[in-house]
Amino acid sequence: MKTLKIPEATIIRLSVYSRYLTQLDKKGITNISSGEIAEGVGGSPAQVRKDLAYFGEFGTRGVGYNVRDLNQHIIRILGLNKNWQVIIVGAGNLGSALTQYKGFRERGFDVIAVFDNDINKVGLTLNGIPIYPVSKLNEIVKKKQVDIGIIAVPAPYAQDVADAMVESGINAILNFAPVVISVPEEVELRNVDLAVNLEILTFNLELQKDKN
Amino acid sequence: MKTLKIPEATIIRLSVYSRYLTQLDKKGITNISSGEIAEGVGGSPAQVRKDLAYFGEFGTRGVGYNVRDLNQHIIRILGLNKNWQVIIVGAGNLGSALTQYKGFRERGFDVIAVFDNDINKVGLTLNGIPIYPVSKLNEIVKKKQVDIGIIAVPAPYAQDVADAMVESGINAILNFAPVVISVPEEVELRNVDLAVNLEILTFNLELQKDKN
Repeated sequence: MKTLKIPEATIIRLSVYSRYLTQLDKKGITNISSGEIAEGVGGSPAQVRKDLAYFGEFGTRGVGYNVRDLNQHIIRILGLNKNWQVIIVGAGNLGSALTQYKGFRERGFDVIAVFDNDINKVGLTLNGIPIYPVSKLNEIVKKKQVDIGIIAVPAPYAQDVADAMVESGINAILNFAPVVISVPEEVELRNVDLAVNLEILTFNLELQKDKN
Repeated sequence: MKTLKIPEATIIRLSVYSRYLTQLDKKGITNISSGEIAEGVGGSPAQVRKDLAYFGEFGTRGVGYNVRDLNQHIIRILGLNKNWQVIIVGAGNLGSALTQYKGFRERGFDVIAVFDNDINKVGLTLNGIPIYPVSKLNEIVKKKQVDIGIIAVPAPYAQDVADAMVESGINAILNFAPVVISVPEEVELRNVDLAVNLEILTFNLELQKDKN
């Protein structure tokens, strides 16, 4: 995946455009210009056009884009024109928060199982989703054809969980544990570091101070 | 802040470089090249040099960077050469997971209070952090000189919480609620949308499929 030429920032923005277009579509708005998209999401019209240009020609000069068509294009680009089966390993606070997270289902991500080794949790459900022991991971991933695994365990257990996921045939992993884990090259791995978000805020706060 | 010329992607990468340099420093490694940094974090040497060049001249040609010096520079750039006081509004699963999140304290973010309107939670502590009613937010933010507020409430309450934060003098907000909130221009706002991370994975999975 190192040869991917589309910047990740573009993918992130496409995801944001799509959310905005979904909102507009719900409101019954049918047409929009790149300037209006930019204004709605806090970007520049040139950036919007550049991001979309990676994927071909959309819209009509002087008329703009059809909201629903453009959104459907983006949804297809992002692979969201189907539902994805997701499992979460770790039934603690984070795993629990993630099972409740409405943003996943809205975008077609179905959390179908949670795994934990705490015998007090196994057999129960978390927001309606069954909790299994980690020893069942391989069986359930294969049976339910799960594509994506989310790691929500403490750092010392993250690599073992990743190994079990890879072993079971999962080919995309989202890791919330604050530790570097390694997976085979063909497995997509994304690390979420929540502190980075705070660091962008403090960077901007310091910048403001320097200006004043 | 719209005139900021340093790309956000650069800030995010600086944050990643700094974590890596901290690890190396702990291992007693004193010098590093841009190529080694790139390898350690999964980037290109040219990108590393370009990111650092925004902030002046670091390192010596042919010798590389002093690990500790470079890290201290980056830490200062990110505003992390001091501790930041943080509050969280919302003592549910997400708020609870965030109070436990070790990555915050490691980078100098001290969560000093949690707020919630559930009378069964007020007066208790969450991982050692006191839970107050939201009506106390203004008083505590002012008294403790809190800089950053984290919104971890359901979407319908997010705007009210943001308003209360702004009113109390908080000037940076991290919003986990999946809803667009508005704040005055001088307040730094960052929205965390966890589904975007999954969408980057599915984009890459689809791309792999197209290649095969």
